Amino acid sequence: MKKLINAPENVVKEALAGMADAHSDLITVRYDPDIIVRADGPIQGKVGIISGGGSGHEPMHGGFVGKGMLDAACPGAVFTSPVPDQMLAATKAVDGGKGVLHIVKNYTGDIMNFEMAAEMAAAEGIEVATVITNDDVAVKDSTWTAGRRGVGVTVLLEKIVGAAADTGADLAEVKRIAEKVNAQGRSMGAALTSCTIPHVGKPSFELPDDEIEVGVGIHGEPGRRRIKIVSAADVTALLTEPILEDLPFSSGDNVLAFVNGLGGTPLIELYVVYNELATILKGRGISISRTLIGNYITSLDMAGCSITLLKLDDELTKLWDAPVHTPALRWGV
Amino acid sequence: MKKLINAPENVVKEALAGMADAHSDLITVRYDPDIIVRADGPIQGKVGIISGGGSGHEPMHGGFVGKGMLDAACPGAVFTSPVPDQMLAATKAVDGGKGVLHIVKNYTGDIMNFEMAAEMAAAEGIEVATVITNDDVAVKDSTWTAGRRGVGVTVLLEKIVGAAADTGADLAEVKRIAEKVNAQGRSMGAALTSCTIPHVGKPSFELPDDEIEVGVGIHGEPGRRRIKIVSAADVTALLTEPILEDLPFSSGDNVLAFVNGLGGTPLIELYVVYNELATILKGRGISISRTLIGNYITSLDMAGCSITLLKLDDELTKLWDAPVHTPALRWGV
Repeated sequence: MKKLINAPENVVKEALAGMADAHSDLITVRYDPDIIVRADGPIQGKVGIISGGGSGHEPMHGGFVGKGMLDAACPGAVFTSPVPDQMLAATKAVDGGKGVLHIVKNYTGDIMNFEMAAEMAAAEGIEVATVITNDDVAVKDSTWTAGRRGVGVTVLLEKIVGAAADTGADLAEVKRIAEKVNAQGRSMGAALTSCTIPHVGKPSFELPDDEIEVGVGIHGEPGRRRIKIVSAADVTALLTEPILEDLPFSSGDNVLAFVNGLGGTPLIELYVVYNELATILKGRGISISRTLIGNYITSLDMAGCSITLLKLDDELTKLWDAPVHTPALRWGV
Repeated sequence: MKKLINAPENVVKEALAGMADAHSDLITVRYDPDIIVRADGPIQGKVGIISGGGSGHEPMHGGFVGKGMLDAACPGAVFTSPVPDQMLAATKAVDGGKGVLHIVKNYTGDIMNFEMAAEMAAAEGIEVATVITNDDVAVKDSTWTAGRRGVGVTVLLEKIVGAAADTGADLAEVKRIAEKVNAQGRSMGAALTSCTIPHVGKPSFELPDDEIEVGVGIHGEPGRRRIKIVSAADVTALLTEPILEDLPFSSGDNVLAFVNGLGGTPLIELYVVYNELATILKGRGISISRTLIGNYITSLDMAGCSITLLKLDDELTKLWDAPVHTPALRWGV
């Protein structure tokens, strides 16, 4: 294992300390239980927005804490759900009197722990609503998931819902928009390499030098199939066709196209993939009005990419365009 | 070779096409000779700022074209200098009547071709000034360099000088600020893996599974030495000490700390390195007032990082903070 780390068991704490020091204008890290909160929170009279999950997917979620996005994030150990105490602490930390939305990716541990935290928060008098993301069209059930996995849509949803909360919307309205984003988005990814969890020290799965995993999960869970490495055009088509068929997306639709790197793939390759995606969508009469290209929901050092398409309307476009200021996403401010 | 590409010889053109489509609000790509220009340029009455170099370092330089940074970029083939025709075309495209600054990284091919382009532009009546970046403290001469290599400071310089040009400064003043940034910045990098040029198809150099290259160049040029893999704390110290001694940086200094990923290293590791860097600087009485952490000057799929420190004063801080809107860097707008 070749990584820029110290003791494997300290990676998450040390990365959190680095984030806290680098972005002290935006975020504060509280320890035991570990949570990342907005430096200027809680915001009175605004619905609080929290998310969380295993570490190893950076910048998600901690890099999305700040103005116009998340009020707090709960980082678990690498590829391991955070515990209910973190979620409860985050819920209490961001409560501004208008309730708190939990954004939960569909993995069994996350669902269970967020549910428990929501019950504990309710017992303390905080109103909590939950949205579950399950946008990965690759497989129905998976290693740690009943139903579809929550992947790239989570990033877009956290941005859009953060903006909705900033408008002063109440908890029911914020939840409505969150569910709409999840309903209108679909994703699928492909791995060129495995990834290595620091405290395990060897690749999570074996992938021969000439094969790729089509439909891989963000923890390296199996996808639809393994195939010999093919061109970027073919990989893009293999990811995009199932996405388009599933919703379905059709001619005249307007989308946000998100090409995401899994951590070990350089930007030049993501632009090659985006170019293929744009060609496919143009051929279907689907227009791209917003884009996001880069590493936003990663799988440690895994090489590969995922594609997410989100059907946009005026409401979602306006919320996407609203100002955001976090360590990883910033515009309009 | 496992990459998200089609024919290796088309990678640069296809990535450019992807960039053009994804960021059509900011940039336009012109072909033969290939240049990336601001969509709203040339800006009359502003000094034009151009840069360029081999591709494979994305987002540098094309991702830095836009408001408050570069007016144009010249992408060469992967790890190969662009040709003078590109630089001449870019110079003419951005000339707003106040002259054009060429930002050139210190590599023999780049220097020679930018010089030729500057002469051709002068013959056409355009005033050109040149700044050469040579901030890499690792080695004096290298595979393609006489003197020190230009690396991470180039990114910071392009941002700061772009802001200087936006204030209405004339060419001499813009050049003064550019030279000041280069003089006040130092860098060094380390590779955990080699990288693979698409049309070569095999790693540029061999690096055993348990070794790292300390002082590596952005094309995989040899550094100071190869050592067995060590902790993030030790790697950070090996990069930071030579930087601090060289300028030198000393107690009371105020710096911009830039931890850069080389393309194949995930963000969680960059934050671990940043955390070590912050500890070292704190111990020396050096304060960090600005940070940049992520993949900005990369080496294809190479795993590893570089550290750049830039000594800040009020002038440079103000220019760093000024609004910028490019595909890869954005704030204040």
